[in-house]
Amino acid sequence: MTEFIPPGTRHVDLPSPFQTRRDGALHGARMAYETWGRLDADASNAVLILTGLSPDAHAAASADDPSPGWWEAMLGPGKPIDTDRWFVVCVNTLGSCKGSTGPASINPDTGEMYRLEFPPLSVEDCADAAAHVVRALGIDRLACVIGNSMGGMVSLAFLLRHPGLARNHINISGAARALPFSIAIRSLQREAIRLDPNWNGGHYDDATYPESGMRMARKLGVITYRSALEWDGRFGRVRLDSDRQDEDPFGLEFEVESYLEAHARRFVRRFDPNCYLYLSRAMDWFDIGDCLGERGGQNRDGTLDALASIRIEKALVIGVQTDILFPLQQQEEIATGLAQGGVDARFLPLESPQGHDAFLVDIARFGPAIRGFLDQLPTAAG
Amino acid sequence: MTEFIPPGTRHVDLPSPFQTRRDGALHGARMAYETWGRLDADASNAVLILTGLSPDAHAAASADDPSPGWWEAMLGPGKPIDTDRWFVVCVNTLGSCKGSTGPASINPDTGEMYRLEFPPLSVEDCADAAAHVVRALGIDRLACVIGNSMGGMVSLAFLLRHPGLARNHINISGAARALPFSIAIRSLQREAIRLDPNWNGGHYDDATYPESGMRMARKLGVITYRSALEWDGRFGRVRLDSDRQDEDPFGLEFEVESYLEAHARRFVRRFDPNCYLYLSRAMDWFDIGDCLGERGGQNRDGTLDALASIRIEKALVIGVQTDILFPLQQQEEIATGLAQGGVDARFLPLESPQGHDAFLVDIARFGPAIRGFLDQLPTAAG
Repeated sequence: MTEFIPPGTRHVDLPSPFQTRRDGALHGARMAYETWGRLDADASNAVLILTGLSPDAHAAASADDPSPGWWEAMLGPGKPIDTDRWFVVCVNTLGSCKGSTGPASINPDTGEMYRLEFPPLSVEDCADAAAHVVRALGIDRLACVIGNSMGGMVSLAFLLRHPGLARNHINISGAARALPFSIAIRSLQREAIRLDPNWNGGHYDDATYPESGMRMARKLGVITYRSALEWDGRFGRVRLDSDRQDEDPFGLEFEVESYLEAHARRFVRRFDPNCYLYLSRAMDWFDIGDCLGERGGQNRDGTLDALASIRIEKALVIGVQTDILFPLQQQEEIATGLAQGGVDARFLPLESPQGHDAFLVDIARFGPAIRGFLDQLPTAAG
Repeated sequence: MTEFIPPGTRHVDLPSPFQTRRDGALHGARMAYETWGRLDADASNAVLILTGLSPDAHAAASADDPSPGWWEAMLGPGKPIDTDRWFVVCVNTLGSCKGSTGPASINPDTGEMYRLEFPPLSVEDCADAAAHVVRALGIDRLACVIGNSMGGMVSLAFLLRHPGLARNHINISGAARALPFSIAIRSLQREAIRLDPNWNGGHYDDATYPESGMRMARKLGVITYRSALEWDGRFGRVRLDSDRQDEDPFGLEFEVESYLEAHARRFVRRFDPNCYLYLSRAMDWFDIGDCLGERGGQNRDGTLDALASIRIEKALVIGVQTDILFPLQQQEEIATGLAQGGVDARFLPLESPQGHDAFLVDIARFGPAIRGFLDQLPTAAG
């Protein structure tokens, strides 16, 4: 598959072998990241950003890559995550296809792409790999870890498994465990990919890319990343011009269908289907309660106990009323659990109409919340 | 395709030709229905039930077919829709494959199945066909029309296009127009079917039934018919026993996945894919505002104007807090519009956790509401 790795990407090698949680090991694996701002002398001003399933490490423009990043409005000089003050690191998650090692990478043991030979990937593995990047950059203690969506899950595993590596945390539209509605959605996305004959058990190439399956998966994603409320105002029942309507009797007719189609077209062939399957399944598997040892999770008590064992100073947990994928109760649960462990944790529900992905677009609400939290943090190591 | 028509089904011939709204015509078409109870001497105790997309006319057990119907707990002697008092008619919708004429029926002009030669089907056509059944049974004036889900849409078109044919109305989890979130979901369901190579432009048979596409469509349906809240309590993160887990690395692992799979298996091969496409698209097209003439709808004012032109006595409009497919605001809109036209309309939001399909299962909440409304209606023609 054609890779789309931003030009500003740098790499850190993971220890070889890198042991994964479910009895696997990676050899010669590496992590992709970008940075903005300058690390101060005592390395006390570092902020780590952990992403959702699909973004690369290019969160914002930089000298090496002036193109806009996926969180351009949030990150930069004078912006809510102010790179005049903070040294910001964004990692591309382990298991991705945007520079970090994943199922689309070459397995050095065979010289072939891993595909389904990649070891089973967990959110905990993504957290451990990100922690390695932080330490490799000479940072013993992050001022803050910021995680969005899947990155919110990775953040919690990071904080629990690497105590002392971060002082504070912003969790955005995250969850401490996957619940059945989101498992059902992701299961269906994976099924759409696996049902595409081109997927072929993971053995596709550019000429036989499972485009239909990926298009379906992405459309279902977009439906759950946004909200009915936003779409009512944005699309209503507006139809496409007749010359843009599909000739097929069941083809595109409404603006909302065209919007989904455009989103899907921008995604397919820029993301590797096997990587998608691995990361999607990792989210289903995640239950912070499991981090305590045996599968002790599976219920709210186990979740709260695990959250209460996280030792940080302050946390801001942001959620959105209209999020159907990671509903607001899940962010409230995170804040409750952290507070039970003594963290100064604030739960901030926002009225954004844009649903799960509001953090990408509703900068008017998210920007001040994130800026306000970061502004009050001391930079000098305490 | 093997047909599954309940043994108690009766038929009424539609006028031939039966003109459809979008410049089509059916020849020799017929409608399937079942009845319960006895029509009184002045035909004033008749209640019509209009169904969602997939149910047949067998809403409850009867002498001709003692098997339980799809609304068994709601309908029968002494039940909320009390067949000791009411003469109840349930029709299988036009366009279905459960006894009424639809895309899987034989086109008398060609001797072949209609498939995609079936004329474009609208909710208004379904309403007109149901109105014909009512009149053919010697009923000039129904005591009440009850419509669920898509049947709630059909009911509104019925009341607007056939003034005087009904005195009262119960609208359950219905909508006066399709909004973009539900259009997006249905569009994706149709795409899943159309992408299945076995669909083959509508030309499949029993040996080449598009099972994968229908399974995907049904699973996505079930996800949107229920609610995250219900599933949290019902499935949580419970995993299948290892002997029920799929050997495929991305196969079934959680109970919720197995639940979806079981639902899908019960549905595919019992419903015709082309019928599904036609009925699904009919819902997207529906906007009660269009019933006034030109596509005047497309906004809330047109919707309310159309609703306000419906002339009935009383209405009960029930919705469910956890419904993501036909959200509560849509039932409130129906009640508001009817009331603006002088109808004694009551909006009743219920706290059912089961989402859109709550009317099928939450009899404890829906039963008393429906019984209470019907009990107060006079039987003698006014």
